[in-house]
Amino acid sequence: MVSVILPDLGTEILIPVCAIIGIGFSLLQWLLVSKVKLVPGPAASNNSGAAGKNGYGDYLIEEEEGLNEHNVVLKCAEIQNAISEGATSFLFTEYQYVGIFMVAFAILIFVFLGSVEGFSTKSQPCTYDPLKMCKPALATAGFSTVSFVLGAVTSVVSGFLGMKIATYANARTTLEARKGVGKAFIIAFRSGAVMGFLLAANGLLVLYITINVFKLYYGDDWEGLFESITGYGLGGSSMALFGRVGGGIYTKAADVGADLVGKVERNIPEDDPRNPAVIADNVGDNVGDIAGMGSDLFGSYAESSCAALVVASISSFGINHEFTPMLYPLIVSSVGIIICLITTLFATDFFEIKAVKEIEPALKNQLIISTILMTIGVAIVSWVALPSSFTIFNFGTQKVVKNWQLFLCVAVGLWAGLIIGFVTEYYTSNAYSPVQDVADSCRTGAATNVIFGLALGYKSVIIPIFAIAVSIFVSFSFAAMYGIAVAALGMLSTIATGLAIDAYGPISDNAGGIAEMAGMSHRIRERTDALDAAGNTTAAIGKGFAIGSAALVSLALFGAFVSRASISTVDVLTPKVFIGLIVGAMLPYWFSAMTMKSVGSAALKMVEEVRRQFNTIPGLMEGTAKPDYATCVKISTDASIKEMIPPGALVMLTPLIVGIFFGVETLSGVLAGSLVSGVQVNAKASGQQNVLSQHKVEIILAGASEHARSLGPKGSDPHKAAVIGDTIGDPLKDTSGPSLNILIKLMAVESLVFAPFFATHGGLLFKIF
Amino acid sequence: MVSVILPDLGTEILIPVCAIIGIGFSLLQWLLVSKVKLVPGPAASNNSGAAGKNGYGDYLIEEEEGLNEHNVVLKCAEIQNAISEGATSFLFTEYQYVGIFMVAFAILIFVFLGSVEGFSTKSQPCTYDPLKMCKPALATAGFSTVSFVLGAVTSVVSGFLGMKIATYANARTTLEARKGVGKAFIIAFRSGAVMGFLLAANGLLVLYITINVFKLYYGDDWEGLFESITGYGLGGSSMALFGRVGGGIYTKAADVGADLVGKVERNIPEDDPRNPAVIADNVGDNVGDIAGMGSDLFGSYAESSCAALVVASISSFGINHEFTPMLYPLIVSSVGIIICLITTLFATDFFEIKAVKEIEPALKNQLIISTILMTIGVAIVSWVALPSSFTIFNFGTQKVVKNWQLFLCVAVGLWAGLIIGFVTEYYTSNAYSPVQDVADSCRTGAATNVIFGLALGYKSVIIPIFAIAVSIFVSFSFAAMYGIAVAALGMLSTIATGLAIDAYGPISDNAGGIAEMAGMSHRIRERTDALDAAGNTTAAIGKGFAIGSAALVSLALFGAFVSRASISTVDVLTPKVFIGLIVGAMLPYWFSAMTMKSVGSAALKMVEEVRRQFNTIPGLMEGTAKPDYATCVKISTDASIKEMIPPGALVMLTPLIVGIFFGVETLSGVLAGSLVSGVQVNAKASGQQNVLSQHKVEIILAGASEHARSLGPKGSDPHKAAVIGDTIGDPLKDTSGPSLNILIKLMAVESLVFAPFFATHGGLLFKIF
Repeated sequence: MVSVILPDLGTEILIPVCAIIGIGFSLLQWLLVSKVKLVPGPAASNNSGAAGKNGYGDYLIEEEEGLNEHNVVLKCAEIQNAISEGATSFLFTEYQYVGIFMVAFAILIFVFLGSVEGFSTKSQPCTYDPLKMCKPALATAGFSTVSFVLGAVTSVVSGFLGMKIATYANARTTLEARKGVGKAFIIAFRSGAVMGFLLAANGLLVLYITINVFKLYYGDDWEGLFESITGYGLGGSSMALFGRVGGGIYTKAADVGADLVGKVERNIPEDDPRNPAVIADNVGDNVGDIAGMGSDLFGSYAESSCAALVVASISSFGINHEFTPMLYPLIVSSVGIIICLITTLFATDFFEIKAVKEIEPALKNQLIISTILMTIGVAIVSWVALPSSFTIFNFGTQKVVKNWQLFLCVAVGLWAGLIIGFVTEYYTSNAYSPVQDVADSCRTGAATNVIFGLALGYKSVIIPIFAIAVSIFVSFSFAAMYGIAVAALGMLSTIATGLAIDAYGPISDNAGGIAEMAGMSHRIRERTDALDAAGNTTAAIGKGFAIGSAALVSLALFGAFVSRASISTVDVLTPKVFIGLIVGAMLPYWFSAMTMKSVGSAALKMVEEVRRQFNTIPGLMEGTAKPDYATCVKISTDASIKEMIPPGALVMLTPLIVGIFFGVETLSGVLAGSLVSGVQVNAKASGQQNVLSQHKVEIILAGASEHARSLGPKGSDPHKAAVIGDTIGDPLKDTSGPSLNILIKLMAVESLVFAPFFATHGGLLFKIF
Repeated sequence: MVSVILPDLGTEILIPVCAIIGIGFSLLQWLLVSKVKLVPGPAASNNSGAAGKNGYGDYLIEEEEGLNEHNVVLKCAEIQNAISEGATSFLFTEYQYVGIFMVAFAILIFVFLGSVEGFSTKSQPCTYDPLKMCKPALATAGFSTVSFVLGAVTSVVSGFLGMKIATYANARTTLEARKGVGKAFIIAFRSGAVMGFLLAANGLLVLYITINVFKLYYGDDWEGLFESITGYGLGGSSMALFGRVGGGIYTKAADVGADLVGKVERNIPEDDPRNPAVIADNVGDNVGDIAGMGSDLFGSYAESSCAALVVASISSFGINHEFTPMLYPLIVSSVGIIICLITTLFATDFFEIKAVKEIEPALKNQLIISTILMTIGVAIVSWVALPSSFTIFNFGTQKVVKNWQLFLCVAVGLWAGLIIGFVTEYYTSNAYSPVQDVADSCRTGAATNVIFGLALGYKSVIIPIFAIAVSIFVSFSFAAMYGIAVAALGMLSTIATGLAIDAYGPISDNAGGIAEMAGMSHRIRERTDALDAAGNTTAAIGKGFAIGSAALVSLALFGAFVSRASISTVDVLTPKVFIGLIVGAMLPYWFSAMTMKSVGSAALKMVEEVRRQFNTIPGLMEGTAKPDYATCVKISTDASIKEMIPPGALVMLTPLIVGIFFGVETLSGVLAGSLVSGVQVNAKASGQQNVLSQHKVEIILAGASEHARSLGPKGSDPHKAAVIGDTIGDPLKDTSGPSLNILIKLMAVESLVFAPFFATHGGLLFKIF
């Protein structure tokens, strides 16, 4: 046994301590956010007394006059409550349906995996080392089921807590915006950090405890132990699927409905309280962009950890039972939490935002700082936690890997993420020519605008794909599938920061909505818009990370599946594999068709309802009558619950059907096909939307540049064309796009979990004929 | 040597005879079209005397009054001349550029292939049978270059002749439309048939003669002979690429420009002579949809023949030098010409179209009849021209194939084509719910309309992909790559009919334009619109065939490439292959980005020019002043020539760069990736456009259904939304979509031609490091 610098006891302490520090830090941030009081009173007055120091120098004192202070705060609290209630009720409805699915699927896992050795309770020879005895398949079935449930519950809790903190923070951000952009930025960012750290630390802690508990039974059968841990990834990811799809349909139906009637037909501003769909729109941001995204990234994190662990368990670490190197993936994540903690301080404490134009650089610096620090962190971890040389299982052969090579694998993933992020920024920021070109094309109407937007979206795929290809090549060459898995983990190691930035966007968006609805002055709205615009670009960067990591994670899971299903080659030139490849490449399109159609139908209903209310409620346009918000919330809720089932079924059933009827070769083709195609469709969809959305911002922020001013003000024809383009792009970005990440990952992890079953009982169709 | 029923002499006679019959039939059709006189005189009067028998019973005699007869005919002739001149001048400009490329690429082929054995003139041991001696690589280089030039020239001639007959026929169709839809249909369809038969027969004849001439040198070195014949496919396809891309940009820039200003902003009808872009738009139909498509389908045909021949040459036919079975692919095509000839008679002679609603069934019957007859034809050919059992080269092993199995391979391709066609029809015909749903979504504006259209486009991919997967699986299982190649050939065996139907569409479209511009009555325009609408749907069916055959052809070429480059497996689980796969899957997006951006920029210029003319030419809207058509023609010409180069370079250079620097493994990954991804992107693009286009037709033909009437008349908001949707879909269909077929085929055939070079000198990057 090769000794490593970090003793096993050190590992046993380091991981939980880092996780607990993360949770503690998250609670601290929450405490700081909670200091902004949502009840009118002396505390609020004190806060307002501190005004004038920051943000816009030309602070408008009249907004703070005691006169309407009381009313504004009350109004904000009321709106926040409405949003929070809508979101909570939607999530509870969603969880009821998802809960039924979870139970059914848990039973399926147990029965299918248990049947591999005919529910025998006897130990069996191990797959990779037939001389040793491993725990029975029935045990793996049982523990896989348990870890599946644990993953699912953790995912649901992550999403739910994220939503809670976001709806807790949005009105507070609005109130702070009265004191300047700097204060508002810190509140929004801290709230994002609560979610980011809670999720990263929680995911790590649950996984760590699960491993230790399972180990009590498995002892030194690490192969069995980590095979059953893969259920954790499956659980996390399947909840993420429903969260993303349901939330995505919800948010976009409301958004499209609100924009088309409000902005295009009625010429009223975004988030105007007269718009009946406005509450539904704000609820949507929280259930889709916050809860959905939280579950999604938790899923990615859980899956990449599981993929790395399962590959490691059949490598020399696993064979020699070296605890510390075995848990290398978890140590990287633990260090990641600490690094992200330091990085967060740069945004909230070390520097202070004083002007609008400092927001975007501050967010971008978060990514750069965390990447640089993490590179050092990974280098140290690779040095202390890995033997200088070890062997990795590589599809039947063993491959010798040095510790510096594994460091390079993690680092290449980490930096590829940053490159993808910056390319995405180039294509989506209104500071560069791509978005400006699209904005120009609005002059000739919505059609040329959309054509340009679609073209740019196609184009934005190119460099990210090269970055992914290079990182795959490097990590694959150095350490086969284990390299890919740790590269994915590298990309996700700064997940806490990434999530903080991602969550910051919808919180600012909501804050703007609340300002508008509470009737606060135009200046407050401008501040939250500025926060939101910066968030849009950085959210695009976050999406780039998500796509890149999804590609790497699913490749790693795919590799693990191939190993576990005992396939030696996946040869494109065999008919079984090739048809899998071509059908797999079709799945992202099928899935997108379903989700886009769902958004379209739901939006259609929403548009008709909003129009109906404008036409039938007298005094609505004049602001003398209140719209019926609840009906719009109900339309979105019903539509998303109903419509999330077919795409969910497509993703969950495809691996089962293909595995059972066509066998593991065809399934491996399907996985490879959906992987290479899904990454492109997704990157394209995100790119298209971001471009279409940002050029709208470009036009709206007419004050920001000469160029934008030349295109015309709000309400002009180019502006309307921009809104149409934005509306078309929206479902591509927030519904189809992100769900595709989950599609490719989920199919891979599901195949991995069921691999022994497919290998034993699968391929019925070919067995019959 | 196993004897077959058909003697070699029979084959030697059968193929050229069929080809000559095809050419003869084509000339006969041309003669019949030319009977409609474009000079005013007694003949025209005679024709008009025969009126009233057909088409609309309520034939309007006043249109035929001698009074304006003379003027109308003169006007039609004048417009036809303008269109023909514009098209000819564009094609000549294009051919100049393409000619330079052709010479440069011919030199490249000679140098690269000659260098494989260091320009040695000595015979070398054969690749697949080292005991025998084969002709030197230098000879293959020379003959490949010759066949490349031959393929390129044949392709150019095919496209040019197609354009000539189309511009010859369009005004004649307009004039015949005065006598009823039946007469007009026959003229348009006959003109399409001229092109279809000329192209199919010409392609076959040139290929047949080339093989026989090359055989004088090669003798019984069939491997070398058919390797050098692959240059024919490369030549055909590379010309097709430029034709499709250049023509596609031309036609869509003009179309989008004309529609956006004319229909949306100025509320004037399509093809109104006041629109300055109207001539450019009509020229575009001829250079894009006719010349481009002619080159494209000729390329497919040439490539699938070459792929089948090169695979056959290393099978038992080739080894035993059995001439008839060897030429089985050509015999199938020969019989196809005769079958199509019979099929054509059903449309033009056996039955007569009497009403508008009979047009679409007549065209659909063409496809059904030709498929049924061809199935019988293929059965007979497989029985007489194949030994009852033979062996096929299958990546290093030999596979025994029965003749009935090969028949099934051809038949599965043939019928998969028909299924794809009918699914496409379901998604694009206004008779079914998909298009009606999209039409309904116009009520809520352009944005929901486009969302629905995009979603439907995604959805329309599903069944065609399954059909392609099944035919790949069946033909691959029966006869490996040879099976795939003959399945592709089966799909293309009815190419003459397919082309006739395809060409019929733009001819009718042009006829409508000429009617409008010549100021003919509304009723004439309605007839040509009806012809055009039927053509739209059947053209979509034709596109389905093109996509399906492209997938099969490129897979066959890919297989031939792998055999020739001596790769034994293309294992996804090797880093070299996987990065190829993911980058290859990205190429269709990159390519689409380029072409769509090109269309967008060109359309932008066109819109501005059209607007400028409307704003600055006094009396233009009132019809008292003539617009400046020539400037619009020039904008389209310049833009398309300039913009076709980058996408062309991307396709032509990728295999060279990947092969030279990364080697054959990565190249095979790129080919597989671009194949599986390109098919989807293409099918999706076609689907999206067709849906978006057809729902416009649905709304315009407001008289046709209750449903459509409820949406509102021309000029209403839903109609404007439909025009925007159509405009967005247009470049997807006519520029990106069809070019993607060529992308995947061309990269495969280019790799095949250069395979020996890459295998010898390629992979520099991996050799260095």
